[in-house]
Amino acid sequence: MTFASDNWAGAAPEIIAAIADANEGAVPAYGGDDLTKRVERRFAEIFDCDLSVFFVATGGAANGLALSVMTPPYAMVLCHEESHIQMDECAGPEFFTGGAKLLPIAGAGGKLTVDAISKALSGFPERPPHGAPASVLSLTQGTECGTRYSVDELKSLTKFAHDAGLLVHVDGARFANAVAASGKSPADLSWRSGVDVLCFGGTKNGCIAAEAVVFFDKDKAHDFEMRRKRAGHLLSKMRFIAAQFDAYLTDDLWLRLAGQANQMAAKLSAGLAAIDGVAISYPTEINEVFACFPDGIAEKLRAEGYWLYPWITPGDPANGKMSRMITSFRTTDEEVETYLDLVRRLI
Amino acid sequence: MTFASDNWAGAAPEIIAAIADANEGAVPAYGGDDLTKRVERRFAEIFDCDLSVFFVATGGAANGLALSVMTPPYAMVLCHEESHIQMDECAGPEFFTGGAKLLPIAGAGGKLTVDAISKALSGFPERPPHGAPASVLSLTQGTECGTRYSVDELKSLTKFAHDAGLLVHVDGARFANAVAASGKSPADLSWRSGVDVLCFGGTKNGCIAAEAVVFFDKDKAHDFEMRRKRAGHLLSKMRFIAAQFDAYLTDDLWLRLAGQANQMAAKLSAGLAAIDGVAISYPTEINEVFACFPDGIAEKLRAEGYWLYPWITPGDPANGKMSRMITSFRTTDEEVETYLDLVRRLI
Amino acid sequence: MTFASDNWAGAAPEIIAAIADANEGAVPAYGGDDLTKRVERRFAEIFDCDLSVFFVATGGAANGLALSVMTPPYAMVLCHEESHIQMDECAGPEFFTGGAKLLPIAGAGGKLTVDAISKALSGFPERPPHGAPASVLSLTQGTECGTRYSVDELKSLTKFAHDAGLLVHVDGARFANAVAASGKSPADLSWRSGVDVLCFGGTKNGCIAAEAVVFFDKDKAHDFEMRRKRAGHLLSKMRFIAAQFDAYLTDDLWLRLAGQANQMAAKLSAGLAAIDGVAISYPTEINEVFACFPDGIAEKLRAEGYWLYPWITPGDPANGKMSRMITSFRTTDEEVETYLDLVRRLI
Amino acid sequence: MTFASDNWAGAAPEIIAAIADANEGAVPAYGGDDLTKRVERRFAEIFDCDLSVFFVATGGAANGLALSVMTPPYAMVLCHEESHIQMDECAGPEFFTGGAKLLPIAGAGGKLTVDAISKALSGFPERPPHGAPASVLSLTQGTECGTRYSVDELKSLTKFAHDAGLLVHVDGARFANAVAASGKSPADLSWRSGVDVLCFGGTKNGCIAAEAVVFFDKDKAHDFEMRRKRAGHLLSKMRFIAAQFDAYLTDDLWLRLAGQANQMAAKLSAGLAAIDGVAISYPTEINEVFACFPDGIAEKLRAEGYWLYPWITPGDPANGKMSRMITSFRTTDEEVETYLDLVRRLI
Repeated sequence: MTFASDNWAGAAPEIIAAIADANEGAVPAYGGDDLTKRVERRFAEIFDCDLSVFFVATGGAANGLALSVMTPPYAMVLCHEESHIQMDECAGPEFFTGGAKLLPIAGAGGKLTVDAISKALSGFPERPPHGAPASVLSLTQGTECGTRYSVDELKSLTKFAHDAGLLVHVDGARFANAVAASGKSPADLSWRSGVDVLCFGGTKNGCIAAEAVVFFDKDKAHDFEMRRKRAGHLLSKMRFIAAQFDAYLTDDLWLRLAGQANQMAAKLSAGLAAIDGVAISYPTEINEVFACFPDGIAEKLRAEGYWLYPWITPGDPANGKMSRMITSFRTTDEEVETYLDLVRRLI
Repeated sequence: MTFASDNWAGAAPEIIAAIADANEGAVPAYGGDDLTKRVERRFAEIFDCDLSVFFVATGGAANGLALSVMTPPYAMVLCHEESHIQMDECAGPEFFTGGAKLLPIAGAGGKLTVDAISKALSGFPERPPHGAPASVLSLTQGTECGTRYSVDELKSLTKFAHDAGLLVHVDGARFANAVAASGKSPADLSWRSGVDVLCFGGTKNGCIAAEAVVFFDKDKAHDFEMRRKRAGHLLSKMRFIAAQFDAYLTDDLWLRLAGQANQMAAKLSAGLAAIDGVAISYPTEINEVFACFPDGIAEKLRAEGYWLYPWITPGDPANGKMSRMITSFRTTDEEVETYLDLVRRLI
Repeated sequence: MTFASDNWAGAAPEIIAAIADANEGAVPAYGGDDLTKRVERRFAEIFDCDLSVFFVATGGAANGLALSVMTPPYAMVLCHEESHIQMDECAGPEFFTGGAKLLPIAGAGGKLTVDAISKALSGFPERPPHGAPASVLSLTQGTECGTRYSVDELKSLTKFAHDAGLLVHVDGARFANAVAASGKSPADLSWRSGVDVLCFGGTKNGCIAAEAVVFFDKDKAHDFEMRRKRAGHLLSKMRFIAAQFDAYLTDDLWLRLAGQANQMAAKLSAGLAAIDGVAISYPTEINEVFACFPDGIAEKLRAEGYWLYPWITPGDPANGKMSRMITSFRTTDEEVETYLDLVRRLI
Repeated sequence: MTFASDNWAGAAPEIIAAIADANEGAVPAYGGDDLTKRVERRFAEIFDCDLSVFFVATGGAANGLALSVMTPPYAMVLCHEESHIQMDECAGPEFFTGGAKLLPIAGAGGKLTVDAISKALSGFPERPPHGAPASVLSLTQGTECGTRYSVDELKSLTKFAHDAGLLVHVDGARFANAVAASGKSPADLSWRSGVDVLCFGGTKNGCIAAEAVVFFDKDKAHDFEMRRKRAGHLLSKMRFIAAQFDAYLTDDLWLRLAGQANQMAAKLSAGLAAIDGVAISYPTEINEVFACFPDGIAEKLRAEGYWLYPWITPGDPANGKMSRMITSFRTTDEEVETYLDLVRRLI
């Protein structure tokens, strides 16, 4: 256990078993098989509404393809300056959308506010065809900083966005953690709060490679299928993604996995907060803990094999001081305790 | 068994087992793990040379990304008019390359000849900046029509291409079948015959989703890594692709799987050829059989559950008459015999 | 006079004068000026219908931008294999459309036929999302080979295209020559014959740099304005393009200029045809003459300063033998006679 | 005179005359003519160094094409948040570069500082392939806010950029104004201060449509020619852009035109500063004046026909209060005085 990333954790045993089970017989490729169709319908039940859903293997593909059908290539996507689409996808959204502009906006704890968005938009008054018009508001739920948007926050953000003519995209690589932590239903945290398109992640939460792009307005998905194929993201043996989601959504596995990760983060956060000299940077609301250690401690922890990711915020004078620790469905109480003991010993 | 596609066949048990085995412990994401590094080195052994190799999940991604580092966006890729990159990727190569042009060229049995390429190129004399200059020759090995290029054919094609200043790309979705059928080494069928970049397929031959892009000149791979990430094709839990290739390349599993598919195709082809009224369309050199049945027979076979893909050739007056049948590692003697019996009964 | 290209000819004096005249006073930029608005309305009169029109400076921009609003980026534009968009724009259409595929189709004398298009399309049956679906038929009027489509030919081509769900684009870099030669009205040769979008050229026919993209269905132009700006093709001092078109469309200047060019081509063609050993390659229907001279003659003509463009047809065994000669509004009877005398003397 | 934009001003008489003069005879198209070649060489004299230069018709094309050869498509261009490439080109740079990211950075008076850039970059540590790596620093000289970079400022910015591995691009739509106002040589304000590529504007300063992209390292221009053609920005009758630059660069016309605009701005700025209640927003260092008028005054000035552009700064609480006034080579002392009288009367 290194607390480096939920991507380091491998897959849940149920997911591995589902892949093995799905290997029976010859079935149509490219999602024409019964399992894929059945699991697609399962999403409608989970979200309690009619919807269109598409499976891909990575979160970057999910975000990029979703945005590519939400914005024209000459328009602008508003996003948090620390969001994955801005910081971690190597200009992928610009690639998928054919050149749409990303407008990075600052906000405490990885969260955008109506005020910040409004201020940013005030700099881009309507003057076609000169400025790229804003087309999409992209939110991350749970955020890159381990926080969550409440239903109320979501509703005011999506209302503002819709009033301004924008569609709302949610990067939900850790949507499961947000749902599990909030106690809200998937519907409450998505379309009932005004979300138009949700990238629903499985990979970080115990799948091998399984992401779903969910369109709550089926009409808005019109050419997603063509764009997915064009970008090489239509898997021929689609049944193996479907199988992962099948297991993931059965008996609330996804919420149990996320819940375990969340609890371990909470325990880790509380333990660190109680140690003199350690400052927790953001509220620990999902499975990520951010903290500043006394000088030299992070280095020592790394030397002990804990891969603390140094969290960097654009323009932050404290850059390099903050460490990110991520828990996963595999993290155990014992691992957290061993780590806390080490931190206490080192300080 | 439907003979529809090798993509319908699921995965070999060794591949499934390898995925399960790879699920131990926390390891670095994005290909930083030891298994990925070890399997990358394994490719160098298999191909008997130093090389750069990158894993992705689909053949469309492999081809598109490979081409994107081989051609500038204003240049032209020569390919067979029935090639996968021209006919089956929904303009994916144009997308990945940022708008490079594909020049489709006709050729019997899915194969390009020096003569056909030379004639096509004669229509595009050097006159920068007006015409898009040719930059890449793309071949398919084994071809979409179930044929193979011999070492001699490859050498003359790649020599012609290199003399004309082109790089040579091979779409090797069925490279394993070509190697197994030819009895040549992977090196003989690739770099020793002048191939610059090979998309080495695993998916159609018993993997779940595993394709490798192999650069025989490491310098030519310079920004593949960035382009793969940008396009959402860098899997976070890369170990699970690496694991597939690990098993695939162990004890010649890949050649055994391909060999079985090839043998079943040979048996099927020979059996069909012996039936009065059935005409084999192309030499059966890998795991694909193309045949024209008497009127009405293909429909009856489909009604019996055999998903015969109607093969279409641009501009061919016989369009709609030809049926494609594909075998896989899972195809059995019994299945072929049952099918041949049915064909005989129906005619 | 070199017969090299109508692009070598400079501008008509009326066009130069109009630019000077338009230089009065401060007027809104980017097409917000009265002159631009007035000239835009003038197009509606010339074409006898309501329409949307946009001015740009080059034919490559006109074609690329027009296609970019006519096709999604994953679809396919059918065009003649010798068309300007395929051969002469350095993969520009692929760039502007974000990666749409061009499907080159052969046809005698630079012209497409329903039969050739139908045959080409038969190779691309509907099978989304695998093949790029055909979205646009692009015709050139007058063609690259100096021929013209008749109204009847246009009507059957556009009917076939519309029945197949395609929009019809016309590259009209030499539309003026086609109109002048046919004696038909601009409307007859465009929307009344089923053309959806016309790139109406001025540059080759006596303007400095003036092309108009005409949408006969205003709804189809929806985001052209944004795409033109994004591509750097919205001129700030738009009045100077508008002024060119103002003069060009006044008192039929455009038809007089084109008529002169056409007549000189006819005279040149007839003169060459009468010379033993010279073979006219295509009917001379606008301002381009194609001929094969006896061996060595073309070289001698070039040595005398006549820049004969060697016309290349993809896959044509006669490549290199055919010479293109283009006349312009500036070509005089005397120049043609002098040239014919020279040819006669050399043979 | 409206002070709306230097784009409203039309062209200098010398420019118009040069176009008329260039209309003699048939000359090669696409820049193959002697005039174009001669004027290209003239740039080397003006800048006192060997260089490559390319002509286009718009500033958006110049910037977009320049950036497209300076950055790979997965990298990042640093620019001022009020720069033209970020605010006014409808996501053009993203289009031309094939999807490179723009990182907008704040800075007083339209100017970037080493400190601001350094802080912004600190948020993007090297971690390929996840974050888009910074590739280019784009500066604007003179700026969108009417200010200028001094030679010292330029040198420290370009040194910082080069040390960080970035190339330096300058949007010089008003480079002439900056040179005229600074008294420095074109070389001092460009390559001698570390600028790699300069977009040298003519259009805003008395040309009709003439922009030059200047590469001070000829090797860096390697495929500009192909990209210009592909984007429809290679004018066939290139002589007419060359002619504009020929006149523009003769007898310092460009500096005289810019000098007049600058002086009128200085006079306007001084006049306004002397009026109680009017606050000059930025130092008036070229031909742009920014001021805040007492409430209601800007509206009254607009009602009198002065088209005051309301200057918007992203995130600025004073948005909507600031007015931009631009002078041009055509602005006269009398016009400025008449305007100042009006302002005085209205307040």
